[in-house]
Amino acid sequence: MRTAEIIRRLTDAGLTVATCESLTAGKLAATIADVPGASAVLRGGLVTYATDLKTALVGVDADLLTASGAVHPQVAAQMATGAARACQADIALACTGVAGPDPQDGQPVGRVFTALLAPQMAEPEVVGHDFSGDRAQIRQATVEACLSQLAAWVQDRWALS
Amino acid sequence: MRTAEIIRRLTDAGLTVATCESLTAGKLAATIADVPGASAVLRGGLVTYATDLKTALVGVDADLLTASGAVHPQVAAQMATGAARACQADIALACTGVAGPDPQDGQPVGRVFTALLAPQMAEPEVVGHDFSGDRAQIRQATVEACLSQLAAWVQDRWALS
Repeated sequence: MRTAEIIRRLTDAGLTVATCESLTAGKLAATIADVPGASAVLRGGLVTYATDLKTALVGVDADLLTASGAVHPQVAAQMATGAARACQADIALACTGVAGPDPQDGQPVGRVFTALLAPQMAEPEVVGHDFSGDRAQIRQATVEACLSQLAAWVQDRWALS
Repeated sequence: MRTAEIIRRLTDAGLTVATCESLTAGKLAATIADVPGASAVLRGGLVTYATDLKTALVGVDADLLTASGAVHPQVAAQMATGAARACQADIALACTGVAGPDPQDGQPVGRVFTALLAPQMAEPEVVGHDFSGDRAQIRQATVEACLSQLAAWVQDRWALS
């Protein structure tokens, strides 16, 4: 499902989207905004590139960050929850991971967690990924993984095949 | 001056950067993060795509937005000031404008304001632009205008020719 089709479905349903991005640093929100008419859906987002901004901007538990580092499924989940709240959106997409060139917080290059919070979810759905490639490829794969996660939810909600 | 050279200069000086983006929706921050090692400089950013998020996330005066719309030099200035504060950064870049396809708030497609707040500035420096081209070209031109503004400041500060 193309991003434009996701936007069209969400627009028709009156559902809005927010993002919280670490390694992609805005590329996910920018990709959504590539679609003309995205303003009906995209509320905005947070680029929490520095670890402490994950707490300051979207309320990720500082003790969790200290104990587990920034690349952790629960961090991705809290980023999604915080983005939905901060941006007053119905749906939130979040991602945290290691784009390289160096490992981070004990996690290898390519380790990424993406999270989706959508209506009727008790808590965010988190998916772990181990992407290969260079820095640009890992960041692009992360954007696509977030959009695929949202596309799957849209397909499920509207019972599309 | 290439973005990598800006990053290198700022890294050496221990100066950090934040962004606040409207029409580019994260593309500016993502472009800075394209450079390996950007994490030494890029704190993070806000994507304030919906007009009300310019108030909620970075404190742009709601009365100004009501009176002047989102595409206004003073809005760009307040976005920069708010981003520096929210992200605890030394330098902030902000942009607001009309990417199209439709005019917005009485402003034509291609009208963009970019703002830079940097050390020793009493208030943000705002530049107005009238870009031509399609939606993608206007957003890309806006990213480049923000980076050029920062490059000019770096060149001036280090007396580079």
